[in-house]
Amino acid sequence: MSKENIQELIEGIASKARKASLQMTRLTAVDKNNILSSLIEKIASNREAILEANKIDTGTAKANGLAQAMVDRLTFTEERLDQLIEGIHEVKALKDPVGEEIDGDFRPNGLHIKKIRVAIGVIGIIYESRPNVTIDCAILCLKSGNACILRGGKEAYHTNTILAKLIREAIKTHGQNPDIVQFIPTTDREALTHLLKQHENIHCIIPRGGESLIRFVAENSLIPVIKHYKGVCNLYVDKDADLEIAGDVTINAKCQRPGVCNSIENLIIHKDVAETFLPAIAERLGGHNVKLKVDKIAKGILSSDSTLSLEDATEEDYYTEFLDLTLSIKIVASLDEGIEFINTYGSAHSESIITRNEETADIFFKDIDSSTIYRNASTRFTDGFEFGLGAEIGISTDRLHARGPMGLRELCTYKYIVTGEGQIKA
Amino acid sequence: MSKENIQELIEGIASKARKASLQMTRLTAVDKNNILSSLIEKIASNREAILEANKIDTGTAKANGLAQAMVDRLTFTEERLDQLIEGIHEVKALKDPVGEEIDGDFRPNGLHIKKIRVAIGVIGIIYESRPNVTIDCAILCLKSGNACILRGGKEAYHTNTILAKLIREAIKTHGQNPDIVQFIPTTDREALTHLLKQHENIHCIIPRGGESLIRFVAENSLIPVIKHYKGVCNLYVDKDADLEIAGDVTINAKCQRPGVCNSIENLIIHKDVAETFLPAIAERLGGHNVKLKVDKIAKGILSSDSTLSLEDATEEDYYTEFLDLTLSIKIVASLDEGIEFINTYGSAHSESIITRNEETADIFFKDIDSSTIYRNASTRFTDGFEFGLGAEIGISTDRLHARGPMGLRELCTYKYIVTGEGQIKA
Repeated sequence: MSKENIQELIEGIASKARKASLQMTRLTAVDKNNILSSLIEKIASNREAILEANKIDTGTAKANGLAQAMVDRLTFTEERLDQLIEGIHEVKALKDPVGEEIDGDFRPNGLHIKKIRVAIGVIGIIYESRPNVTIDCAILCLKSGNACILRGGKEAYHTNTILAKLIREAIKTHGQNPDIVQFIPTTDREALTHLLKQHENIHCIIPRGGESLIRFVAENSLIPVIKHYKGVCNLYVDKDADLEIAGDVTINAKCQRPGVCNSIENLIIHKDVAETFLPAIAERLGGHNVKLKVDKIAKGILSSDSTLSLEDATEEDYYTEFLDLTLSIKIVASLDEGIEFINTYGSAHSESIITRNEETADIFFKDIDSSTIYRNASTRFTDGFEFGLGAEIGISTDRLHARGPMGLRELCTYKYIVTGEGQIKA
Repeated sequence: MSKENIQELIEGIASKARKASLQMTRLTAVDKNNILSSLIEKIASNREAILEANKIDTGTAKANGLAQAMVDRLTFTEERLDQLIEGIHEVKALKDPVGEEIDGDFRPNGLHIKKIRVAIGVIGIIYESRPNVTIDCAILCLKSGNACILRGGKEAYHTNTILAKLIREAIKTHGQNPDIVQFIPTTDREALTHLLKQHENIHCIIPRGGESLIRFVAENSLIPVIKHYKGVCNLYVDKDADLEIAGDVTINAKCQRPGVCNSIENLIIHKDVAETFLPAIAERLGGHNVKLKVDKIAKGILSSDSTLSLEDATEEDYYTEFLDLTLSIKIVASLDEGIEFINTYGSAHSESIITRNEETADIFFKDIDSSTIYRNASTRFTDGFEFGLGAEIGISTDRLHARGPMGLRELCTYKYIVTGEGQIKA
């Protein structure tokens, strides 16, 4: 496609999405759930075709020498299709957020002001390999009353294309405008660049993927972006910690699923408990094949245990999301030093303190500048399901609009409805 | 100042602001109000110096041939200083938003999740001529727990400088870090450009001013921007309107203060009432010296009245915020046409429908894509005081985070505080 054609294509998609989004205000909760029901039927009756499209993608990926983990993420199986359908049932069961009254007040002049939850408008989702994101994001946008423009990665192109086609068919089945969901039929970077300039018609961009994709989007977008950035999560073991809890939480937060954003990367230990806690936890972590990167004090404490393989932690390590069985360790002299460490090296995602001391916990809660802060619990709970949002489009690492897990309500904004009897301003 | 020095200056300011904002978590409501009390004293005891600094600014403005209206906006008088002080008293009286529990829930696994209101962090305010903005914005940011960086216009430079100095002194009086409020000591455009790139240390930019300033900020910022953009507000007179209310609201919304963003620019009339309503309202508007820009149908209806001075409305007119005694008029054949007109030409700020018909009003409320929608009332009520927010930093025309009047709560974000007893993820 020529540059001019790509620009025209993207402008057309954005303008059609805006038009569709304005029509969506008339969709009821029942209308939206009917579309979801049809989508379930369409996926169920097109299993073969979806798996075939997916085979083209995985075949290309293997031929191109993609890492096995990447090919796994791409791959659809009967079981994953079942999960996909189950996810649609779950979103169907969620309460429709549109029209919820958030606040209401009668003013002294008799005006009745209501604050009502409404869709944002048009949302652009930029994502990478996993094709289930196509369905997950489209149905969350639909249920929250938003039109969406999906731009998936090239690895899952054929799978994404058929899934997007099925959603559009499900929408058409109910006489609605299929442009409620549009999939960009090219993975050319040029198309993405144009998409990010359509601020007249697109109201929010949500990038989901690796650091470089998110950086590119943030730096090139004229549209507000809600970033789903990295999770450099921290666990702080206080001097007043219950060390049994501290041990179990460390193992869980590091080892249960190290490749996700809410697992920990840094373990910070108060010096008063380091002599007791560190050798014990180092041994348990060793048993889980966790590689340790340690500061000088920790190295001194652990030096007597020759079974451990230790590396010196660099400053860069403390900023790093390993997404792997690697953990950096830092010994601090005070709560304040621990807080400063987390506010400096963390990514403001999820942090936890292990302490029996109420006052210490309160200071930690106040001073830590992150979206989710735990006391005596694993950071692994940061997600939309665990938080009771039902489903999530991701976990925002931004501060404005939505912070932490983003569910249906976070995909909405609000408007004020003001009813009067002829009031004019004096 | 050289380019390198400006960059260094701005980076230093941003990094100091971030540091100060992290310290602000320990400020109580009393601490913040004590600072506000000291600021009141400092302004009261430095009236002479403020007025003298202001005279330099107004003198330069006059010498440079600035329009009288602009010079007026710049000018401080004893009375305006009284109003400034009164404004600080009002903000003192407002409830501290920081720490408010927005939501709370016990999860089935026993985790207690609380959603708590907290400051955004560091806010950059970019504004133009009026020097009272320096105080208004600084105290709203302070009260909401945010550090702020103020970048005022060159016309009010000397006045802004002394006001910023007084705030910093008031903060120091209470042993706090004066970098909570910083004023950029240059109006070089280069400084603004650098400021907009400090996304590591600044979390939100609020531009207040003319269209070109806001466009520049939105296009150059790597930091999320909450725009306070133009108000192309619309009044729709339905076929089921109470025409007496329609007349009074039209006059109020256009004439009471035409230079503000919540006054109307377009009057849309259903054809069924145009023959009755239009000649009457045109005459009343004429009595207020309002210039009318009309479509063909309106022109036909009004042609018999030779006392009116009419112009043909262009498409461009319907997009225009006149900020003056000028009103565009459009006759529509249906409610849907009126809604489409408003969603096309309006700026999603404030719109009003005059109708006795409940069903019509509901459709208007649902389909109009604006932050504030009135029925049977003037659009002039869109502001923080009228909405009961107490004070406002402005009126957001964006959709994300804050929409419409922005008070203390809208200057906050939230974080999740999760308390457990050792819970780990299964």
